[in-house]
Amino acid sequence: MGPDQAEDANTVAGVGEFGLIHRVIAGHEQPAGTVLGPGDDAAVLDAPDGRIVATTDVLVENVHFRFDWSNAHQVGRKAVAVNLSDIAAMGARPTGLLVGLACPPDLPTSVVDELSAGMWEEAQSAGAGVVGGDMVSATALTISITALGDLGGRAPVTRSGARPGDVVAVAGRLGWAAAGLAVLGRGFRSPVAVVSAQRVPEPPYTAGPQAADAGATSMVDVSDGLLADLGHVAESSEVSVDVRTELLDVPQRLVEVASALGADPRHWVLTGGEDQSLVATFPSAQAVPEGWTVVGSVAGGKGVTVDGEEYAGDAGWQHWR
Amino acid sequence: MGPDQAEDANTVAGVGEFGLIHRVIAGHEQPAGTVLGPGDDAAVLDAPDGRIVATTDVLVENVHFRFDWSNAHQVGRKAVAVNLSDIAAMGARPTGLLVGLACPPDLPTSVVDELSAGMWEEAQSAGAGVVGGDMVSATALTISITALGDLGGRAPVTRSGARPGDVVAVAGRLGWAAAGLAVLGRGFRSPVAVVSAQRVPEPPYTAGPQAADAGATSMVDVSDGLLADLGHVAESSEVSVDVRTELLDVPQRLVEVASALGADPRHWVLTGGEDQSLVATFPSAQAVPEGWTVVGSVAGGKGVTVDGEEYAGDAGWQHWR
Repeated sequence: MGPDQAEDANTVAGVGEFGLIHRVIAGHEQPAGTVLGPGDDAAVLDAPDGRIVATTDVLVENVHFRFDWSNAHQVGRKAVAVNLSDIAAMGARPTGLLVGLACPPDLPTSVVDELSAGMWEEAQSAGAGVVGGDMVSATALTISITALGDLGGRAPVTRSGARPGDVVAVAGRLGWAAAGLAVLGRGFRSPVAVVSAQRVPEPPYTAGPQAADAGATSMVDVSDGLLADLGHVAESSEVSVDVRTELLDVPQRLVEVASALGADPRHWVLTGGEDQSLVATFPSAQAVPEGWTVVGSVAGGKGVTVDGEEYAGDAGWQHWR
Repeated sequence: MGPDQAEDANTVAGVGEFGLIHRVIAGHEQPAGTVLGPGDDAAVLDAPDGRIVATTDVLVENVHFRFDWSNAHQVGRKAVAVNLSDIAAMGARPTGLLVGLACPPDLPTSVVDELSAGMWEEAQSAGAGVVGGDMVSATALTISITALGDLGGRAPVTRSGARPGDVVAVAGRLGWAAAGLAVLGRGFRSPVAVVSAQRVPEPPYTAGPQAADAGATSMVDVSDGLLADLGHVAESSEVSVDVRTELLDVPQRLVEVASALGADPRHWVLTGGEDQSLVATFPSAQAVPEGWTVVGSVAGGKGVTVDGEEYAGDAGWQHWR
């Protein structure tokens, strides 16, 4: 780092570590459950349940997000959403977040401010605060987020509890982020509805605890794609899952976008990741709560099928493959 | 990433995300407080105190560690130690860790295995396990760790509780990592004692809860240097701190190394970071528990002095400055 950067108050290097931490995590109102917020060696959060749910996700610029497709506020919201949806998928309520930012020294502080504003907006939408963090120097912008949550006395809903005879149900959108990705990948910026879905998912946070209360036997968030994530459930639960296409909602908007791009909208619904919706199994259709849509069923055996047959396309996304 | 990498089972890309997660966080015995370990959307940990202590640190290759100075096992241990010492500095007992690894696709899996082994060894030395994580692709190796801890009914010991009349005491080593850094920086690999201290700190984990039980009024871990970290205490507590050099232990080993390098060993003790020791304030010398050494006192006013005077050298390390 040269002396110019260190003296430029508009860059990360100019503001310095402590100034930057202050900008990102201090100066916001913490939820009631934050016993001790940012600024000390560690934060302290209420864990009224006597257990804590914890998950971490790392997002790297130009791997998980691109500033030519999304602004920093949107990246901040999405980085938080992908973590909080994991908390919801256990049947828990998000309580707090810790944010690790590895930033190039010449990153404008305005980018950090916008990232931070987006993170706080998404956290507060789910009732959580940013309680701690770390800021370091790096060549590429990397965002590491750890989310914490409280089960409120519920048993955690794992991937391994699905049983033959269960029904499969979904809460939240499917295929929208994939449609947005297809649009952005062609160099378009509209339709706004699908592009926005790719930029900022809208996880159904409260549907997670709702499903747990309703007796969900297993649950995951849909980050890799419906079929891929149901594959994790099938494998962990040692069952097979069949998705019925006649039960799948293929929204008119996705049909229109797919038509314009020569794509298959149902493929987006079955395999598109990044919507951070929830898919769960319930002991019966009667147990499925309002806001959830039955899309399939669980049987013995292994693997995931669509209308009883192996799906012909790629089932979803995997890093490095 | 090319097809060659994806097919090479000795690289991160060849093993793939899920295989890598399994290698790093599964296959180890979890402590009794881990309700649900790795492999689901989130982990679940006991929080018997009804509160949780949480902190995060990010380490970047060639910024915070160098593989020509340390092997991957040592890097793993240090990455965990710098987090767990923050938990100890609140007066808490470490319970669990979440690890985010951003790796270049061509990183050998042997490096990940050694990192993981080092992380587990350090975690288990403090009674904690690695309960969750995320592995993603990136250009530079970045390690993000979040540590969680339990206060066991104690009030958290913050930076802001020091009062005029308190004594200042230290647990653990000071200046050893700085001496090791000076040695490594000159291209030497010995004396082993100081080089090892730079590679792997030895935080006095149990001294944190011990100090809290003894009535410590403030506490921090020494990561930036004794004077710099006492500066955080002085600022947060709105007090002044004076360190007395006649009370400081300057080990003969550091004297010898400093003599060979033409350096001042006391400067290392006063300003050297990365030993992850603990410094705390206590209401009286009588309150200071065994294993802690009184090194100074607290008064009204502001700032940190050495023998009543402003310290002439740089007080410690700050990112990007």
